[in-house]
Amino acid sequence: MRYAVLGTGQVGRTLGGRLVELGHEVRLGSRTPDNTAAVQWSAAAGPRAGTGTFAQAAAFGEVVVNAVGGRVALAALEAAGAANLGGKVLVDVCNPLAFEEGELRLSPVESDSVGEQIQRAFPHARVVKALNTVNCRVMVEPGLVPGEHQVFVCGNDADAKRRVTELLGEFGWPADRVLDLGGIRAARSVEMYLPLWVDLMRKLGHAEFNVQVRTAR
Amino acid sequence: MRYAVLGTGQVGRTLGGRLVELGHEVRLGSRTPDNTAAVQWSAAAGPRAGTGTFAQAAAFGEVVVNAVGGRVALAALEAAGAANLGGKVLVDVCNPLAFEEGELRLSPVESDSVGEQIQRAFPHARVVKALNTVNCRVMVEPGLVPGEHQVFVCGNDADAKRRVTELLGEFGWPADRVLDLGGIRAARSVEMYLPLWVDLMRKLGHAEFNVQVRTAR
Repeated sequence: MRYAVLGTGQVGRTLGGRLVELGHEVRLGSRTPDNTAAVQWSAAAGPRAGTGTFAQAAAFGEVVVNAVGGRVALAALEAAGAANLGGKVLVDVCNPLAFEEGELRLSPVESDSVGEQIQRAFPHARVVKALNTVNCRVMVEPGLVPGEHQVFVCGNDADAKRRVTELLGEFGWPADRVLDLGGIRAARSVEMYLPLWVDLMRKLGHAEFNVQVRTAR
Repeated sequence: MRYAVLGTGQVGRTLGGRLVELGHEVRLGSRTPDNTAAVQWSAAAGPRAGTGTFAQAAAFGEVVVNAVGGRVALAALEAAGAANLGGKVLVDVCNPLAFEEGELRLSPVESDSVGEQIQRAFPHARVVKALNTVNCRVMVEPGLVPGEHQVFVCGNDADAKRRVTELLGEFGWPADRVLDLGGIRAARSVEMYLPLWVDLMRKLGHAEFNVQVRTAR
């Protein structure tokens, strides 16, 4: 399948690299067509990998993965262009975190989420929030972490969630470890988990962890 | 030991009942001295159980447990009186959740937390945030949920956290399943987990669940 991965940071490069390894064609999108990180990634990833602007990548992809920082996601998707997103599954993995005066802050929060903002701004895209609760290495290799830990998906389009669940299966997440939390409104919940994730990361001293929901029945 | 449990809702009654079963003396505090739920609870719980106003209960307790709703916690603790809280371990189990226009909302959120508000308002209390991430039945009987799932503590006083960890041990939480997230600022993180908890509760159809942090190393 043809994937656009928007964002050339560690998350984008990791997701893009794994998608290429899985046999997909990937265009890593960035603001400029000659982004150094993207070009180096593409050279290392091989012939199924390529680069381009956000718009070029989004036009190429049958599925679009938003892996830019949550604070700039809307701007990146505007640059990608609504016409290049319409009707497509748009996997939103970002979190609206940023350091402000030495404090890690989340915005929007509680009354809104990036996932919802994206769905509102691009009503013809089929937004699925996924994978934002784990480090990118865990995203594409859940076996790094022992146990039957899970990831969450949410979104308004059931078929889109089904397709994202299949993609997660390719990454190594069995379908029974993909917890569907309902519509895109639940993006608030999974984004608001991030401060706890950050505290756990500081406590453990590394980012290769996840949570496993244990239930009495 | 003598415990004050502030709040006569399900959380307060459950915690108070378990403390009595464990051999402690408990005063369940409420706004009025003749609260019906408190009087019925006390009659059922036996001779080590009693009731009183917030102030009477707090004066009685060597340890104070705040189990009122997060939106009214400061008012209840004001009624309890700073003099009755000073120097004591104050276990804050509340969450600042409320339904507003049919939506579950959290306030304060992100830039503050109830745990921090309480510590600021009562600087001589030794506030430990704990147990707010699980249903009250799980709080006092973690074995209801299978697996090595955990609870979190945070607070500025290391000795207070040690004592709360011992209390959690009496409830059935081994010390290695009590994760210390640092100072009271981490109350933000554990309170912000609540929307995800609520979504999971809706998905599972019950409240007897918890998360287990799984880590690569």
